[in-house]
Amino acid sequence: MLIGIDPLLGPDLLHALASMGHGDELAIVDANFPAATMGQRIVEVRGANSPALLNAILSLFPVDTFIVPAVVTMEVVGDPIAVPAPVAEFAAVMRERGLGESEIGRLDRNAFYARARGAFVIVRTGELRPYGNVLLVKGVVNPEPPRES
Amino acid sequence: MLIGIDPLLGPDLLHALASMGHGDELAIVDANFPAATMGQRIVEVRGANSPALLNAILSLFPVDTFIVPAVVTMEVVGDPIAVPAPVAEFAAVMRERGLGESEIGRLDRNAFYARARGAFVIVRTGELRPYGNVLLVKGVVNPEPPRES
Repeated sequence: MLIGIDPLLGPDLLHALASMGHGDELAIVDANFPAATMGQRIVEVRGANSPALLNAILSLFPVDTFIVPAVVTMEVVGDPIAVPAPVAEFAAVMRERGLGESEIGRLDRNAFYARARGAFVIVRTGELRPYGNVLLVKGVVNPEPPRES
Repeated sequence: MLIGIDPLLGPDLLHALASMGHGDELAIVDANFPAATMGQRIVEVRGANSPALLNAILSLFPVDTFIVPAVVTMEVVGDPIAVPAPVAEFAAVMRERGLGESEIGRLDRNAFYARARGAFVIVRTGELRPYGNVLLVKGVVNPEPPRES
């Protein structure tokens, strides 16, 4: 446990987040996702759903502003305009984090898999609902004084 | 780079900090310290001095309140009441971090080595001044809402 750090962010996930540079990608995926096959690096967080992980990760992770969209979800197979519950919750998390203006893109299933294969890290959650997948592109932190706490 | 995280805290140091539990100890040591011999786990941060590392680590690290002193420095050999410059700066960092009431203990050189050998991690800095060594005991973070940012 660390001061001010979301308890969902354990040692391995913090290491991955801090290792990433701008343009590197992170995928948060549901419990059925073939993470062990596709992931170059995998962190398991079984005890939380995908929107909770998005919320925790966005507490530290700067979303890219050069690449648009820098946040991408997976389309429902056969119904590309559907908004599954986890995807609606991702948008709510983005709004709560002050990222309501960020465009959330969509990729069909196979295109999402291709992006996930190239991701720096795949975070597999305990999300049991389908389509609980979201990919983020890391941006930069501009110079500012370290946080006081 | 991560939002609100001191840039001195890289992936390996974040991993170590988050891995530690209460009662685990961390030693910040100067550039001459035999860290590779004594350390069970070592993180090198060559570009900063020891007080800068103490400041960065205390931004996330809860100092123990059960074990007193939970912060310990090394006595000057042959002059145990001397206060070397890095030790004076450690105290200033503690005050700036709101830990001015915390007792800073002292150990003679060999006793400090013995503690460092048992530490969870040794952080070796670029500190070129002698006696730039300080050992911290980790405490707990009490439940509170995750940091908003």
